[in-house]
Amino acid sequence: MMQPSFEDIQSAATRIKSHIHRTPVMGNASINRMVGARIFFKCENFQKAGAFKMRGAANAVLSLSEEERKKGVATHSSGNHGQALARAAQSVGIPAYIVMPKTAPSVKKKAVAGYGAEITICEPTLQAREETLTEVVNRTGAQFVHPYNDERVISGQGTAALELIEETKTLDVVMAPVGGGGLLSGTAIACCAMLPNASVIAGEPQGADDAYRSLQAGHIMPSESPNTIADGLLTSLGSKTFPIIQKLVSRIIVVSDAEIVAAMRLVWERMKIIIETSCAVPLAAVLKQPEDFRGKRIGIILTGGNVDLEKLPF
Amino acid sequence: MMQPSFEDIQSAATRIKSHIHRTPVMGNASINRMVGARIFFKCENFQKAGAFKMRGAANAVLSLSEEERKKGVATHSSGNHGQALARAAQSVGIPAYIVMPKTAPSVKKKAVAGYGAEITICEPTLQAREETLTEVVNRTGAQFVHPYNDERVISGQGTAALELIEETKTLDVVMAPVGGGGLLSGTAIACCAMLPNASVIAGEPQGADDAYRSLQAGHIMPSESPNTIADGLLTSLGSKTFPIIQKLVSRIIVVSDAEIVAAMRLVWERMKIIIETSCAVPLAAVLKQPEDFRGKRIGIILTGGNVDLEKLPF
Repeated sequence: MMQPSFEDIQSAATRIKSHIHRTPVMGNASINRMVGARIFFKCENFQKAGAFKMRGAANAVLSLSEEERKKGVATHSSGNHGQALARAAQSVGIPAYIVMPKTAPSVKKKAVAGYGAEITICEPTLQAREETLTEVVNRTGAQFVHPYNDERVISGQGTAALELIEETKTLDVVMAPVGGGGLLSGTAIACCAMLPNASVIAGEPQGADDAYRSLQAGHIMPSESPNTIADGLLTSLGSKTFPIIQKLVSRIIVVSDAEIVAAMRLVWERMKIIIETSCAVPLAAVLKQPEDFRGKRIGIILTGGNVDLEKLPF
Repeated sequence: MMQPSFEDIQSAATRIKSHIHRTPVMGNASINRMVGARIFFKCENFQKAGAFKMRGAANAVLSLSEEERKKGVATHSSGNHGQALARAAQSVGIPAYIVMPKTAPSVKKKAVAGYGAEITICEPTLQAREETLTEVVNRTGAQFVHPYNDERVISGQGTAALELIEETKTLDVVMAPVGGGGLLSGTAIACCAMLPNASVIAGEPQGADDAYRSLQAGHIMPSESPNTIADGLLTSLGSKTFPIIQKLVSRIIVVSDAEIVAAMRLVWERMKIIIETSCAVPLAAVLKQPEDFRGKRIGIILTGGNVDLEKLPF
């Protein structure tokens, strides 16, 4: 498959429509006053399984052939992608095999098991995860659905921006966080097609700033030992997301963990909605450099709300 | 003024329309599965000033004569009503005088001051609050707006149920928490007019169960030393709310603090929205006695989302 086009995102939107929630777009007058701009938050924290990942997972599952469906899907994940893939597979009645590190929180293991997926536990290293996944795929014949370096996933994630822009019409800036770049790639493709004059800007945590450094260098520079409170953004850009981001994203703004926690708390207190740390990164970027956003209409994808209430950062 | 009618609630809805948010109605599939019913949550936690109290306060302020407006409004409150009245007064440019106990959290004092109200601090007893308020009213000529024992406030609070029922059409049960009974009275009046076959059921904390005991006794039995985590529901029914509730409310279900916290946490985790302890009381009642609600369409007013993130009960 070639690089996903806007038509792929439109097809994904039709394909997944009955499997996802059309999430609301919310605003908040006091945050608008604080930044001197008008922000439209696309609330994917209200998405099924609590995150936008449901979109890419559903699109991948629904794109399988009849033959492929029988054997199911597999991935390795300690987080939202594993839950989303398990739930998407369950909703069409096909098997899902999720490789999880033994350090994954038991609440996440329970959620994945609750969606009927088969869990294989492995050591908490990337090598162990990949090896275990290969064994699972070889044994079952399941399709590997990568969390971001996969055209079906990128097209699915792009449907959040498509809905946001359909609803808000004109925007000057569209923002998303960047980890592996699946959401950012899909967002950028949708935005460039629907709003050619708008800029796509990403927020990235300082402790995992490979996308920022990769754009500077002109080639992928993976994070060596990423360390940030935004635990959904530890991964580095992939071979399929980097070229899209390089071409279509105007700018990446790097923010500290303290800035992320402050933005997260602001959303909880003012908007009364629960977002996870990774989700707060684009707003943290706006709050860090409000002069760059003053007077603008800004769309921000709020990515997810899966928070361990026992371990709040404030 | 006589007991408020449904027409008073309709007039209030028109009067306050441009001063409040029309809050969304949300549902959650996993909570529905858990209780075996379909629940429609009216999200007043997203209301201006973070609670339904804005409705009654706005209706009271907008019902003043030109002469009365000049002198402003006054109340005593350590919580949401004070904030709401201050904000409503600010929005029409009239003075607000709020008497607050010296023990009120500084964040609440700041919020009230932020809406431009004049704060008078007093000792944290009901007697001191009432005496201080009398002094303030005598000095300023401001109209006292009682947090619940006031027809304008009751009519304003009833607009939340009016919007909920307009949107959901048929419901079998409509629920609200009960403290002083302003919201419950307005909800019951709206529900009986719009859905004469539906029941109105309230949730009440065990540690402040005066409404439950008052309905049993047939006369007002105030709470002597109320003690519950649901700190918005410590007050007892008033002379204007008791007769409405006695006539129109089918039933009051009493729940423990542990049941309230569990329901609150469920909403945070599943719905990804922030509600305060008092707000979780009706859902706690449904979870306590699901057999009474099975298969029904239930409307619940989520009353507010003003939570101190430093002092979470879990």
